Amino acid sequence: MSDSNPAARALPPAHDKRLFTPGPLTTSATVKQAMLTDLGSRDETFLAIVRDVRMRLLALYGLAQARGHECVLVQGSGTFAVESALGSIVPRDGKLLACVNGAYGERIAKMAAVYGIPCEVLRAREDALIDPRAVEAALARDRGLTHVALVHVETTSGVLNPMRAVGEVVHAAGRAYFVDAMSAFGALPIEFDAAHVDFLAASANKCLEGIPGLAFVLARRSALEQIEGRARTLALDLHAQWRGLEKDGQFRFTPPTHVVLALHRALLELELEGGVAGRERRYRANHARLRAGMERLGFRAYVPAQHSGPIISTFLYPAHPRFDFQDFYRRLSARGFLIYPGKLTQAECFRLGNIGRLFESDMDALLTAIPPVLAEMGVELS
Amino acid sequence: MSDSNPAARALPPAHDKRLFTPGPLTTSATVKQAMLTDLGSRDETFLAIVRDVRMRLLALYGLAQARGHECVLVQGSGTFAVESALGSIVPRDGKLLACVNGAYGERIAKMAAVYGIPCEVLRAREDALIDPRAVEAALARDRGLTHVALVHVETTSGVLNPMRAVGEVVHAAGRAYFVDAMSAFGALPIEFDAAHVDFLAASANKCLEGIPGLAFVLARRSALEQIEGRARTLALDLHAQWRGLEKDGQFRFTPPTHVVLALHRALLELELEGGVAGRERRYRANHARLRAGMERLGFRAYVPAQHSGPIISTFLYPAHPRFDFQDFYRRLSARGFLIYPGKLTQAECFRLGNIGRLFESDMDALLTAIPPVLAEMGVELS
Repeated sequence: MSDSNPAARALPPAHDKRLFTPGPLTTSATVKQAMLTDLGSRDETFLAIVRDVRMRLLALYGLAQARGHECVLVQGSGTFAVESALGSIVPRDGKLLACVNGAYGERIAKMAAVYGIPCEVLRAREDALIDPRAVEAALARDRGLTHVALVHVETTSGVLNPMRAVGEVVHAAGRAYFVDAMSAFGALPIEFDAAHVDFLAASANKCLEGIPGLAFVLARRSALEQIEGRARTLALDLHAQWRGLEKDGQFRFTPPTHVVLALHRALLELELEGGVAGRERRYRANHARLRAGMERLGFRAYVPAQHSGPIISTFLYPAHPRFDFQDFYRRLSARGFLIYPGKLTQAECFRLGNIGRLFESDMDALLTAIPPVLAEMGVELS
Repeated sequence: MSDSNPAARALPPAHDKRLFTPGPLTTSATVKQAMLTDLGSRDETFLAIVRDVRMRLLALYGLAQARGHECVLVQGSGTFAVESALGSIVPRDGKLLACVNGAYGERIAKMAAVYGIPCEVLRAREDALIDPRAVEAALARDRGLTHVALVHVETTSGVLNPMRAVGEVVHAAGRAYFVDAMSAFGALPIEFDAAHVDFLAASANKCLEGIPGLAFVLARRSALEQIEGRARTLALDLHAQWRGLEKDGQFRFTPPTHVVLALHRALLELELEGGVAGRERRYRANHARLRAGMERLGFRAYVPAQHSGPIISTFLYPAHPRFDFQDFYRRLSARGFLIYPGKLTQAECFRLGNIGRLFESDMDALLTAIPPVLAEMGVELS
């Protein structure tokens, strides 16, 4: 885009801009090409794919129907799956403990408010972890708390919460455990049984590198069986959706067939990459390279390294008076790199995701593009 | 598929099966190819497309923001948009009159029950129309009724309800009017203003020939402004979704970017076909040819011709003892034609949709495939 021939700028680029965001992400050409087929939503060809997707999502973490686990596909963004779970699992006389250290935790508390579900909020700083001992104390203080909700990787900041340690405390106190694993699923270890997870929500278009429009909830069947009749909506009734899938293999309402096909393909490609461990390796390499490179350029990460997951990084706005995020964003976008605004309440920052079909060479490309952009802006970092 | 070489059967077919269903439908190759791009959901390229899609959906029926109309995109199947509307528009002290002559009307009554919205059901036979005078009488009888819901084309049977006449009665009685126009939008005239519609829900993947996973609600702005705070969910809050789109052009939660791109392309192709009138012409020709052809083969349509829309037809199971729907379905599927089961409570039937990227030649192809299938089954129709 720094070509000297202005006419060349009007030509379409050879490839999409690289998405350094938390999603929608850069996906493989073959995942997108899997959508070039129109299938009947009730036909056996599609139903076999739905079965395989549900099986594969469980198998990624060693879970299986034969071992008492279930996978319920929910259409919509990840938020739809979180809301489907929360609105369906907490009974009318239940009470939720929402662990909050970022916007996605806040969203869970907000859902509870909309549904009239009594909710206590356990808050931590946006650059700190949820403390299992604080959860333990909250549960001991209020015997009325029936459910605990935790965000595994808080996409706001990139913080990686201690999912297993919190689960052990929840289990010891005899409460039910819901995990929003949106930005972790497919790329980080999840000890579903050891962490005593009852319900876990995630999405097709984060670390699984599928297409947005589809999410899912994994659950222990014994927990799922207990929630019949608790749902507060029709479309997001988790139990009814599960029963529908089990009865005849179909979604209750028109499924996003093409997006399901893309997820199926994405799961095959995840397997080719070596499963969760293989993907984690690539993301960790991306993350380390990007964070180190940004720090070398003079940016400061908001979350201490030991609290950060390998998914997304938050960088504070440089203190330089000429730094303007919109300007920075537009100049990088013109060079083919899309970065992401911040969402913190406690600091001015922007975010760089390092997931999707991106490699260390893509991190290098971004790191190479930033210095000339800063120079154009007249921003010098020390 | 009746080839004598069995090995040839294992080869993949040259094209997808033709979908004679109410959706998901057969779409054009170019609509699907529009999904081969990963866009950032907050980037201007995507936001411009969202704006254009919203404008075009209104413009199809001569509506515009400048004239006080609004378009709110809702991700999910059509049911999600219907539920988003119903759950967001009826106040806590409101009461719904649900006009029911099929499964989609029943679904509206069921949503009301789940949300605890008081609801009276006005029922008609599945092969008959909703009678505007019956609506008028119901509204006169119960002054507590605040909202009326009507399904424009009842996909269960194909019945085309008198949307405008009901709207005039609702307006004269000073109540609010919600229309589920799922199977009509894009291919049938909709007199939004003359019918005094307040809210209308439809979907990307029916007559618009987009991809499933996206729906929308059109509304009068003055009606939309009144519903703030009425929603019973977060994800399906129609008012908040509208405010979000107006504020920064973005969906509140990760949008199905690829499905939005497909709808955008589908709307361009609708324009190339001559808009709603052009599409209606094709669908009417398809419908007439299919219904006449089926009757010539000895099948009997369930809905009288004068009550049927040009979208989908319901045929009674033939009385012949050897007719088995599953067998019929499988044999047609093996030949590349997917038909649809019935959903009536009052009669055993199957359905043939004639929408999507199908032409009269496709109707002929199906009509040509049926006689040998019936002969294989040993079914003779008189």
